[in-house]
Amino acid sequence: MLDTALNWRYAAKRMNGRRVPEITVERILDTAHLAPSSYGLQPYSVVVVDTPELRERCQPAMFHQPQIVEGSHLLVFATWESIGEAEVDQLMTLTAEERGVELASLDGYRQTVAGAVGRLSTSQARHQWAARQAYLAMGMVLTAAAMERVDATPMEGFDPAALDEVLELPARGLRSAVVVMLGYRDTETDWLAGLKKVRWPRERVIARAECVERSK
Amino acid sequence: MLDTALNWRYAAKRMNGRRVPEITVERILDTAHLAPSSYGLQPYSVVVVDTPELRERCQPAMFHQPQIVEGSHLLVFATWESIGEAEVDQLMTLTAEERGVELASLDGYRQTVAGAVGRLSTSQARHQWAARQAYLAMGMVLTAAAMERVDATPMEGFDPAALDEVLELPARGLRSAVVVMLGYRDTETDWLAGLKKVRWPRERVIARAECVERSK
Repeated sequence: MLDTALNWRYAAKRMNGRRVPEITVERILDTAHLAPSSYGLQPYSVVVVDTPELRERCQPAMFHQPQIVEGSHLLVFATWESIGEAEVDQLMTLTAEERGVELASLDGYRQTVAGAVGRLSTSQARHQWAARQAYLAMGMVLTAAAMERVDATPMEGFDPAALDEVLELPARGLRSAVVVMLGYRDTETDWLAGLKKVRWPRERVIARAECVERSK
Repeated sequence: MLDTALNWRYAAKRMNGRRVPEITVERILDTAHLAPSSYGLQPYSVVVVDTPELRERCQPAMFHQPQIVEGSHLLVFATWESIGEAEVDQLMTLTAEERGVELASLDGYRQTVAGAVGRLSTSQARHQWAARQAYLAMGMVLTAAAMERVDATPMEGFDPAALDEVLELPARGLRSAVVVMLGYRDTETDWLAGLKKVRWPRERVIARAECVERSK
């Protein structure tokens, strides 16, 4: 069933203008909220752009790709600019509350997380680390969308600084990493709609460890 | 249903030794094979380590985490060391074959992909880019595992160079980026098994674009 959904999906380049129902969008977004992340820090937000006016304003930063206005909800996966002691403390407070334990009992966990975060010493290192977590969440979102038979086009081809400016992300401490457009494919106009999905032969992607025999 | 599966899942720290059936593992791995990627290049392999002997040999590189031997299948998401003209040409040949079109008709696509790959000018830049694609696939794998009620623990805490050496990945042109352990949780021994899942409040992760009002 999941297999059927993933074979159905593709990165639609043209969409038909139909709006995805809010309840469906929320279910898809639930997966991003539930996605696991490094140390549980979830160092990103998914910024939802759903009005036609704002999507139109985003379009130049998206190199004028038509699905930005033909689709329904633009999801901008944006990493936190600040990832440090303050965020680690917030996570500890939240964890203590949610699990009904003393904050002090989390000292070991706090030190581990703070140490790991501290080793991300540059803004670029933090962004790279956080972007990986966002891509993991994006993988879940794409899966959820396919199961709902909603088209979801992942997009890396855009001008992050320009998109950040339109969406005023710097003021919110966010920086865009990757984008997903939700909507419904337009099979009449999308040249990609009827084409066969291309993947490497399975054995190129899924490999067995080869050193088993030698180790025996 | 997906929501139930994702609430059921957590990163099991102890597993009970039961083996995940091969047919289930293959279904889970299908999602990694079908995962979308930048330009369709799928610049990674998932190396499957399923024998107890080899998992034991991997354990020191995994900082002796017990689930490596208590679980069933270790999935190593490893990026390609070489991503250049040769791989782009292979993708074009595959695409032409699969879609029954002339190779020459893909010239524009080839130039776009070759240009993008060419801008990844260092080994580290290529690894970062490929690792993001691997994390996307990992998000799909974690979702598929949860739907099968198979535990899947994502792990970033390991020594990549040591793991690469045990699995002889450099000889295959691969470099480990992230690991997922498949198996079944041991609810008796896993301290994490009974604990409440902790996530930021939904509105911290899922945000609406805020500049809508001003733009009206």
